[in-house]
Amino acid sequence: MTKVEETACACGTQAKSGRKAVAVDPEIKTSNLKRLRRIEGQIRGLQRMVEEEYYCADILVQISSVQEALRGVGRELMRNHLQHCAAQAISKGSRQDAAAMCEELLDLMYRHAR
Amino acid sequence: MTKVEETACACGTQAKSGRKAVAVDPEIKTSNLKRLRRIEGQIRGLQRMVEEEYYCADILVQISSVQEALRGVGRELMRNHLQHCAAQAISKGSRQDAAAMCEELLDLMYRHAR
Amino acid sequence: MTKVEETACACGTQAKSGRKAVAVDPEIKTSNLKRLRRIEGQIRGLQRMVEEEYYCADILVQISSVQEALRGVGRELMRNHLQHCAAQAISKGSRQDAAAMCEELLDLMYRHAR
Amino acid sequence: MTKVEETACACGTQAKSGRKAVAVDPEIKTSNLKRLRRIEGQIRGLQRMVEEEYYCADILVQISSVQEALRGVGRELMRNHLQHCAAQAISKGSRQDAAAMCEELLDLMYRHAR
Repeated sequence: MTKVEETACACGTQAKSGRKAVAVDPEIKTSNLKRLRRIEGQIRGLQRMVEEEYYCADILVQISSVQEALRGVGRELMRNHLQHCAAQAISKGSRQDAAAMCEELLDLMYRHAR
Repeated sequence: MTKVEETACACGTQAKSGRKAVAVDPEIKTSNLKRLRRIEGQIRGLQRMVEEEYYCADILVQISSVQEALRGVGRELMRNHLQHCAAQAISKGSRQDAAAMCEELLDLMYRHAR
Repeated sequence: MTKVEETACACGTQAKSGRKAVAVDPEIKTSNLKRLRRIEGQIRGLQRMVEEEYYCADILVQISSVQEALRGVGRELMRNHLQHCAAQAISKGSRQDAAAMCEELLDLMYRHAR
Repeated sequence: MTKVEETACACGTQAKSGRKAVAVDPEIKTSNLKRLRRIEGQIRGLQRMVEEEYYCADILVQISSVQEALRGVGRELMRNHLQHCAAQAISKGSRQDAAAMCEELLDLMYRHAR
């Protein structure tokens, strides 16, 4: 993914590398941070359930709820990615940037956003 | 699921209700607590990535890795559930207990363990 | 899975091997055959959509509907499996039969019933 | 999705409506038709397995293999969709076309390409 990121990406970038994010919707950022803090609490709840030997099926249902919450965060990140990063690579990048972005999106969809 | 839990379950039970777990494999418990602490760290890492506006695709890959880790916890819980709880409901419970356990397992598999 | 099948399974067996199914619910069998014929029709519909160059997103939605239908068949097979085969291995098989059945179920759930 | 299709889509369109596909990669089309014919054969194989009361777990593994094959078709359709249709909506469509395409992609990813 580095190639896309280096040349054309725009939706956020690593602090370390010094590059600034071209665009992160502030509402998406705020809502994702809120969701992730809630998920952190759910993970601690899971630890307590395991520690206190709760009924396995109840823990499994709770894990499923955390998975859904993570999917929700992923969906918002993907929205930001499509609206800013992918859009820029596709509309302003070279033909190769656009092709690389398509492959990156496919990979995210079929390997990571299951 | 309450019905199964009340009558036949054995693999762990809620502290509140005062019932004791019939069987939780200590290795599964220990390994799941370790995994869940690591997952908690990953969630905090995700918060930092969102906060610092990392590249969306990198955050998505990291979310996918947390989801796999949670699946791993779920799998171990399911192993415990099958070996102890489901086994007891099926071999020692009434015909109805066994049938209720089958439905509970189907529900866990097709609704929650996706 | 052969080990389970050879020693303890009961929910159906390959015609070739000459062993008879101990138990296949006739309603499950009938309904699954009906579903699979409908799915065959949907697959032919997909071929036509691809042939006639339908809008990709519409084909993707149709594929998703076939996937759900296949999940439905899988769920019924799993119900039969749990009620007959797994139940027999767990309640009448040896300790090893029961353990092998648990591993088989975990494998089906986490690798195949996604 | 109709809105996107009407205004900006380009990756294929329904024969009925009389609109021509702007772009369907011929290799993707050929390979998808081949895959779908193979999948049709697999579905008939599943019917036979159910008919002859094969071991449930073996049928479940086979269903999982059909699902992976369908995912493969979906992935190719998505590649075509991104390279042609989405790319056109994003680079040549209006701001609204681009936004509608993003929402359509999110929907496909998170509801249909699971």
